[in-house]
Amino acid sequence: MDALSRIERALGSALACTQVPGAPPRLGEAMRYAVFPRGARVRPRLVLAVALANGDDIPGLTDAAAAAIELLHCASLVHDDLPCFDDAAVRRGKPSLHRAFGEPLAVLAGDALIVLAFQTIARAAPLAPARAAALMLAIGDSVGMPFGIVAGQAWECEDDVDLAAYQRQKTGSLFAAAVVAGAAAAGVPAEPWRRFGEHLGEAYQVADDLSDALSEEGESGKPRGQDVAHDRPSAVRSLGIAGAVKRLEELAEAAVAAVPACDGAAGLKALIRHEARRLLPEKLVLSPA
Amino acid sequence: MDALSRIERALGSALACTQVPGAPPRLGEAMRYAVFPRGARVRPRLVLAVALANGDDIPGLTDAAAAAIELLHCASLVHDDLPCFDDAAVRRGKPSLHRAFGEPLAVLAGDALIVLAFQTIARAAPLAPARAAALMLAIGDSVGMPFGIVAGQAWECEDDVDLAAYQRQKTGSLFAAAVVAGAAAAGVPAEPWRRFGEHLGEAYQVADDLSDALSEEGESGKPRGQDVAHDRPSAVRSLGIAGAVKRLEELAEAAVAAVPACDGAAGLKALIRHEARRLLPEKLVLSPA
Repeated sequence: MDALSRIERALGSALACTQVPGAPPRLGEAMRYAVFPRGARVRPRLVLAVALANGDDIPGLTDAAAAAIELLHCASLVHDDLPCFDDAAVRRGKPSLHRAFGEPLAVLAGDALIVLAFQTIARAAPLAPARAAALMLAIGDSVGMPFGIVAGQAWECEDDVDLAAYQRQKTGSLFAAAVVAGAAAAGVPAEPWRRFGEHLGEAYQVADDLSDALSEEGESGKPRGQDVAHDRPSAVRSLGIAGAVKRLEELAEAAVAAVPACDGAAGLKALIRHEARRLLPEKLVLSPA
Repeated sequence: MDALSRIERALGSALACTQVPGAPPRLGEAMRYAVFPRGARVRPRLVLAVALANGDDIPGLTDAAAAAIELLHCASLVHDDLPCFDDAAVRRGKPSLHRAFGEPLAVLAGDALIVLAFQTIARAAPLAPARAAALMLAIGDSVGMPFGIVAGQAWECEDDVDLAAYQRQKTGSLFAAAVVAGAAAAGVPAEPWRRFGEHLGEAYQVADDLSDALSEEGESGKPRGQDVAHDRPSAVRSLGIAGAVKRLEELAEAAVAAVPACDGAAGLKALIRHEARRLLPEKLVLSPA
């Protein structure tokens, strides 16, 4: 089974709880709306890639980790789109969740997706309780305080912003978690993998800044120019287009160099280089390989 | 150390992450504002009471479970108070979190408190990984889909409301979780304890309805009459004052009868009867014991 099929199956299985008789049906519908149809699934593919590079000997735990990471990513998008933050009208090419279901269900769907991430790991925990505990901690820390996504988002509410912390926490933390979770699910020491994930997260943030500055609305599935509109820090604003492209390439190479020794290292490095090229907005890819 | 001191120490320890250098300071402040100074701490005291009745042989895990349950309760209050739900101005006798810190930080503080509950269990997991996995699942299910608090709150957004599910899920689920978590942390089979928690949760919901209908603003720390104002179901609205008091007494006795056999059963039953009396608004306690 290929990676995307495994991910969609794991997410479908996690979200089965939203259609149980006795559960509030519109909340269930809102949660599924937030997760399907799929986006690029970049983070859960990373979980699987790292686990596979390390043997992936308990696939059920890997799948749970991949689903949990994606559920948390979807939850963060739903809450970031709320009127009190970006008030985004569009997400993944369709109305944002609060526009489609109203603000109360958007708050609750985000909450329920956060919880579902942990329920998903807990359900898989009997496969390997000690690995599951490590997973739970790595994933929890990547979302919560002091340095997770929620902390990153909260820098938008501070008078005195720590820009490096903002970017590292808001985007980088879930990439680092994806990588660490993949290693933890496969039962290898996870911390040596963190730097690889951090470089990838920073690369993805730069790619997102480029996409925000350059892409057409239809291409990214969300309106462009949001960073300037919301006065958010951005690699394009600080480095210019060419500088941001160069930075993205440097970061991808730094990520490749940070891959720890493992059976699947060569394949993983090739995958990263391929992804880095894919992340550049189309008009910047001058010499497609 | 008495129960409340244990609980405050466990919460203080969980919230230490909000003051780490590099974390966004206002989010940290908002999270502490949501948790301190303390309310009645009814749910974590229940965790401790059940664990102690069963030996409490790994107190560090019990404390983590108690803190997690209270963090989730505080998170649910913060999100329920948001403008898109109750738009409550006052909570525990002070401005609600979104009035004090703004709506973005209220959303994020709720999110971060949910995550912190799971981080807290994960940090204690090495003490007993299998028990921690059971705790995580019981606590996750009590908050998430299909039947947890978030599901309960979502019934307020459905056209066709399942009233029994609404009340059981919105209030009862966290009481059931507190009881099940106390048993799981002490390493005894947890499921036989669930019914006890469910009765207690229903009793507490009736007590809350009575308090909403009867108490003065200064007494409960929040404005009264919210159930009628928001057209929410309430035991007082359906049974009248006297009927609701009778129902509360019946439920407390049902809870007492449902306590499974254990070394500390007698003490636990006495505690429940004492609490049931305490929960009645003062003007209804005709013959204080």
